[in-house]
Amino acid sequence: MAGHDKAKRGIPPKGNFNAWYPAIVEIADLVDKRYPIKGMDVWKPYGWKAMTLIDGLTRAEMDRTNHEEYNFPLLVPEDLLEKEIKLVTLLKKAREEGVNPSELRLDEEEAGFKKEVYWVKHAGENELDLPMFLRPTSETPMYTMFSLWVRSHGDLPLKTFQIVNTFRYETKQTRSFIRVREIHFFEAHTAHKDQAGADAQIEEDAMIVQNLLHDLCFPAIVSTRPVWDTFPGAWFSNAVDVVMPNGRTLQVATYHHYKDQWAREFDLKYEDANGQTQFCHQTTFGMSERMLGAVVGMHGDDSGLIFPPKIAPIQVVIMPIAPHLDENVIPKVNEMAGMRKTAGYRVKVDDRDIRPGTKHYDWEIKGVPLRIELGPRDLESGQFVITLRTGGKENHEENELLDVVSNSLLETEIELRARAKVHMQKFVCEFPGIRQTDIGWELVSELEDDKVYELAFDGNDSDAEVLERATGLTFLGDCVEVYSEPRPCAVSGRMTTRKQHLARMY
Amino acid sequence: MAGHDKAKRGIPPKGNFNAWYPAIVEIADLVDKRYPIKGMDVWKPYGWKAMTLIDGLTRAEMDRTNHEEYNFPLLVPEDLLEKEIKLVTLLKKAREEGVNPSELRLDEEEAGFKKEVYWVKHAGENELDLPMFLRPTSETPMYTMFSLWVRSHGDLPLKTFQIVNTFRYETKQTRSFIRVREIHFFEAHTAHKDQAGADAQIEEDAMIVQNLLHDLCFPAIVSTRPVWDTFPGAWFSNAVDVVMPNGRTLQVATYHHYKDQWAREFDLKYEDANGQTQFCHQTTFGMSERMLGAVVGMHGDDSGLIFPPKIAPIQVVIMPIAPHLDENVIPKVNEMAGMRKTAGYRVKVDDRDIRPGTKHYDWEIKGVPLRIELGPRDLESGQFVITLRTGGKENHEENELLDVVSNSLLETEIELRARAKVHMQKFVCEFPGIRQTDIGWELVSELEDDKVYELAFDGNDSDAEVLERATGLTFLGDCVEVYSEPRPCAVSGRMTTRKQHLARMY
Repeated sequence: MAGHDKAKRGIPPKGNFNAWYPAIVEIADLVDKRYPIKGMDVWKPYGWKAMTLIDGLTRAEMDRTNHEEYNFPLLVPEDLLEKEIKLVTLLKKAREEGVNPSELRLDEEEAGFKKEVYWVKHAGENELDLPMFLRPTSETPMYTMFSLWVRSHGDLPLKTFQIVNTFRYETKQTRSFIRVREIHFFEAHTAHKDQAGADAQIEEDAMIVQNLLHDLCFPAIVSTRPVWDTFPGAWFSNAVDVVMPNGRTLQVATYHHYKDQWAREFDLKYEDANGQTQFCHQTTFGMSERMLGAVVGMHGDDSGLIFPPKIAPIQVVIMPIAPHLDENVIPKVNEMAGMRKTAGYRVKVDDRDIRPGTKHYDWEIKGVPLRIELGPRDLESGQFVITLRTGGKENHEENELLDVVSNSLLETEIELRARAKVHMQKFVCEFPGIRQTDIGWELVSELEDDKVYELAFDGNDSDAEVLERATGLTFLGDCVEVYSEPRPCAVSGRMTTRKQHLARMY
Repeated sequence: MAGHDKAKRGIPPKGNFNAWYPAIVEIADLVDKRYPIKGMDVWKPYGWKAMTLIDGLTRAEMDRTNHEEYNFPLLVPEDLLEKEIKLVTLLKKAREEGVNPSELRLDEEEAGFKKEVYWVKHAGENELDLPMFLRPTSETPMYTMFSLWVRSHGDLPLKTFQIVNTFRYETKQTRSFIRVREIHFFEAHTAHKDQAGADAQIEEDAMIVQNLLHDLCFPAIVSTRPVWDTFPGAWFSNAVDVVMPNGRTLQVATYHHYKDQWAREFDLKYEDANGQTQFCHQTTFGMSERMLGAVVGMHGDDSGLIFPPKIAPIQVVIMPIAPHLDENVIPKVNEMAGMRKTAGYRVKVDDRDIRPGTKHYDWEIKGVPLRIELGPRDLESGQFVITLRTGGKENHEENELLDVVSNSLLETEIELRARAKVHMQKFVCEFPGIRQTDIGWELVSELEDDKVYELAFDGNDSDAEVLERATGLTFLGDCVEVYSEPRPCAVSGRMTTRKQHLARMY
């Protein structure tokens, strides 16, 4: 029966992740992909609710850490982009040539590079004097205003964030939540008195990410991206990568230390306590709807989604069984649903006139953590039946309802974290090693297709290139976790505690 | 002292509303208008918080009435606009010619009219094959999807809403919240089995508006717009107008009955219980950041804003007085701030090391409903001092804190509603009458500049035109409230209970 129903809804096995993922996001009614622009999905209520619950967790963290919520205009005038391009190009060139950016001059052509943005050059029937673009991220519009707001050291730190729509003109294949053209985006931007202030902010960002990952019940690899993969304009970029079930890593968060590089370009300075003018040091912290993509990919199974309780749009479904046989069933079910108010749970009563089995499959697909059934026999025995989406079915005394729900939600979280840990152990393997032969470098043994490889690495850029070429994989960067004991570097053989990962990135 | 401080911050007297309004929105730190695109303000945290609290009230009403929240893409392909233009032009023509729209054909030129929208025709360095525009409202993108979602009568009613950014290429002078180019927008769209379903929805919308106005503490005039001012594509449009302190009316909400007019254009139909195919009947309900503009304009005074408690970003400020004289002041203040958690109030402790007077002026400007002071003398007497933004300063026993705050917030709401009622009585006057003379129609007596005129009116379109010409004012439409006793129509003299208003609209 279950097999029949699943087949009917067309859920491929999760083992075939590249088929399962795009199918489940629509079957579970998170999005509708039939909107007539590629890469721009319609958020359905169930998906949007999950996303706003993730936003809620983020806002709580922002509140805890004294960030304030702004909302900036979507459109950015072209001349601000020119400023950014100048900064980015200078830094890139300086990095390549190993010189100080201030010693460089840009020629026309280099500064002329255009980003992958959507342009607004017309309004009504007019061509606009100053073209504008849809923000891909908000450094330029925000820092333009920051320089008006920050005057003295008393104005610092300035800790801002916003949750908005951003746009990227993606030319690669799009995929719901993972690679889209209109992005539901979180970005925090801060300005500090000095580098130490920005350093501390990076620490705080790291903790915020860990808190969110805890609530979402999966681990991630946090790395300082290699220089060549650092966000343009950043001193360094820390990135948070989740290992998806096809072995690809998905970057779900990044936080960047800008030092005073942007501040110099945007003239963001303040008067310090001694009356001296100083440039601010800045950081950025970004996350997006990819976090929901990771939840879907990490926790789902062959039967559908599994939502971590903290962001489950519905935490408990209550299903009356055979209410036509006992008129007290419906009132009791409604009484139980009262935990919506008394305990703040997100509860749904499913009183549709269909087979209980079909209801179970529906809520299984949608990943509701707990299902409760109550029928005439349960009424008689003063009990109810609870089924956990992570597995298990139990009878409990009616008067224990709130405790049972509370414990079962907690149990679900613990089980999801345990599964995610096993998942990571399965996908993150020791790198088998590489050796130099007469004809060049070769792998000690073949790599598996869907794995992330962990290795001790202490080499330079060209050592890294050797590894990336030999493996066809990409360095995630220096992992913030290091080995407790030094190990030999995979290329140079030097002893090091530096841990790195080679992966196929989304 | 107070006068000095106010002058320093540059708040014009509210009597000069056209100077007061644009000044106060920046002085109270709701928005920053220095963003380099005209008509696109930056929402500062204080303004954004107030807006999201209004959104919260709206979401609660949507939840109560079983609407579900969606989120649609911002960009709309050009060909959908063509569909809308065709519908609108046909209906307009049919209305003018008094014929059934289905009997009409459009010629090229009529269908070629372009709306006041922002166009995206380029991305990266490419010109797009299909131009897109930024949604000014979402009928076309939503109804395109509705026709995929609705199959049978079991899918109805479909009650959707979203809170998103929309765009209008305004050529008129912009004004924060009131006339902007990026609009923070609420829109509900519904589809029903038949006209009765849509009729009932319009009733529900009317009640939702009244609930919101009650929470925001001001009344409004609700009218069915004249035919020539009906939303394109609508059968009729009900509009909610607030009378601002310069006598201009501000439309803060509209709800439209579409009958099956859009459904026919977008092929939105379903199979009824008898297996017959039927077109849906639809409604739309829109509100925007104008609601915040109305709050600012309606309740503020010479000293700044006054926030209705339900949407006050800060409901209570607690100020420690002379804490250096008694080390128990700060702990007691923090203990009082515990009502944040125990009672859910939005509380701020202002422990800045500045004069209490300056603090009072700051929070007065920002319209915080309640200010509480506590110093060594209060500690001794077991009391605290509370000041209401609407006026009045009282001493209370410390153990009555929660009751006092709860009662004072309620008192503030009642006082604001009473003031708004007086405001309406001041601004909405009886129309003095009009009479026909040898040289045409003339007013019985001169009109005042900043008033809205109420009148009994039962005339036709040309009678209305006579009145609009003679007064230089605009009809708001048939007021949903009628006169309890018939009165003579201002033009025809026929007895009628139909009440209308002539006003200067924003």
